Amino acid sequence: MKVLIDICVIPMGTGISVSEYIAECQKVFKESGLTHTMHAFGTNVEGEWDEVFAAVKKCHERVHKLGAPRISTTIRIGTRIDHSQTLEDKIKSVESKLK
Amino acid sequence: MKVLIDICVIPMGTGISVSEYIAECQKVFKESGLTHTMHAFGTNVEGEWDEVFAAVKKCHERVHKLGAPRISTTIRIGTRIDHSQTLEDKIKSVESKLK
Amino acid sequence: MKVLIDICVIPMGTGISVSEYIAECQKVFKESGLTHTMHAFGTNVEGEWDEVFAAVKKCHERVHKLGAPRISTTIRIGTRIDHSQTLEDKIKSVESKLK
Amino acid sequence: MKVLIDICVIPMGTGISVSEYIAECQKVFKESGLTHTMHAFGTNVEGEWDEVFAAVKKCHERVHKLGAPRISTTIRIGTRIDHSQTLEDKIKSVESKLK
Repeated sequence: MKVLIDICVIPMGTGISVSEYIAECQKVFKESGLTHTMHAFGTNVEGEWDEVFAAVKKCHERVHKLGAPRISTTIRIGTRIDHSQTLEDKIKSVESKLK
Repeated sequence: MKVLIDICVIPMGTGISVSEYIAECQKVFKESGLTHTMHAFGTNVEGEWDEVFAAVKKCHERVHKLGAPRISTTIRIGTRIDHSQTLEDKIKSVESKLK
Repeated sequence: MKVLIDICVIPMGTGISVSEYIAECQKVFKESGLTHTMHAFGTNVEGEWDEVFAAVKKCHERVHKLGAPRISTTIRIGTRIDHSQTLEDKIKSVESKLK
Repeated sequence: MKVLIDICVIPMGTGISVSEYIAECQKVFKESGLTHTMHAFGTNVEGEWDEVFAAVKKCHERVHKLGAPRISTTIRIGTRIDHSQTLEDKIKSVESKLK
């Protein structure tokens, strides 16, 4: 099952700035080989369900290892069985309606 | 790694009422044996990471099988390594501050 | 326009325990007079759009005032124009399918 | 109070494709004059709290008017009082850690 997700990881019990931890998650997604794009509030990731969620788990493990005692993450998950759709398809679909 | 999640599954491309699909997810969580509590906007689930996310995946599989062509789910995920905390602990902690 | 929301407020740059801040939000909702129910990952709130979002804004103001330098909140928002639905209706609708 | 949000609007009780409704929200944000950027799972918006949430409310009103009987939206909200931060600052902060 293919899945598209949008993930936002919030380390807690750390300092105010959390960019170091977010950068660690970017490394996890890069290492995973999954298609991903960061925006100002999270990262879009695309792939097979098990691979995507293995990367999500690794984000939690690595952010804890880097020093965050607590993590609060939010994920949006999209699956569909009518036809396959990539992250890029979703954006193009909206943009075509705006022309 | 223990995890607490809050999951809200939204079937798309179906009718306006989606309670049949939400009920199916409740069955999945019941079958999983995981501690869980439903509220008006989702379900709190508690357990080992792999077991909890196996149940999340099963929700998507079963809701698609029931007829929803597309699903948009949101999940809040909490992990901590300073000490273990249950769903019940979280509520008690806030309630103790309100006394 | 009536709205049902589910709100989870995460103070950042504070200690690991955040229950003091969550309790402050419970006070805000109580003061607002809006129907609300807390669960382990947030609070369901029901009411007119402007009143509900005035309370959301007040949560941010009060949690900052209490000492949190940064806040990361997530909200699920539900509106419908086919018929009115309360938080209680949503739960009953799912429970009726489980009988 | 400045706020950064990430909003994802899901029309329910419509067809499987919802890009027409998402495009309508893009028009709302454009008309609002607020800084905003769309990604595959939502839109980042930046501005004064009241202006940003006026735009959020308008999204619901316009998507209902376009024909969606029910809407399920998720929003991530960020505020901070230690110093001001734009959407662009957030991305640069992570990117600087990845160099």
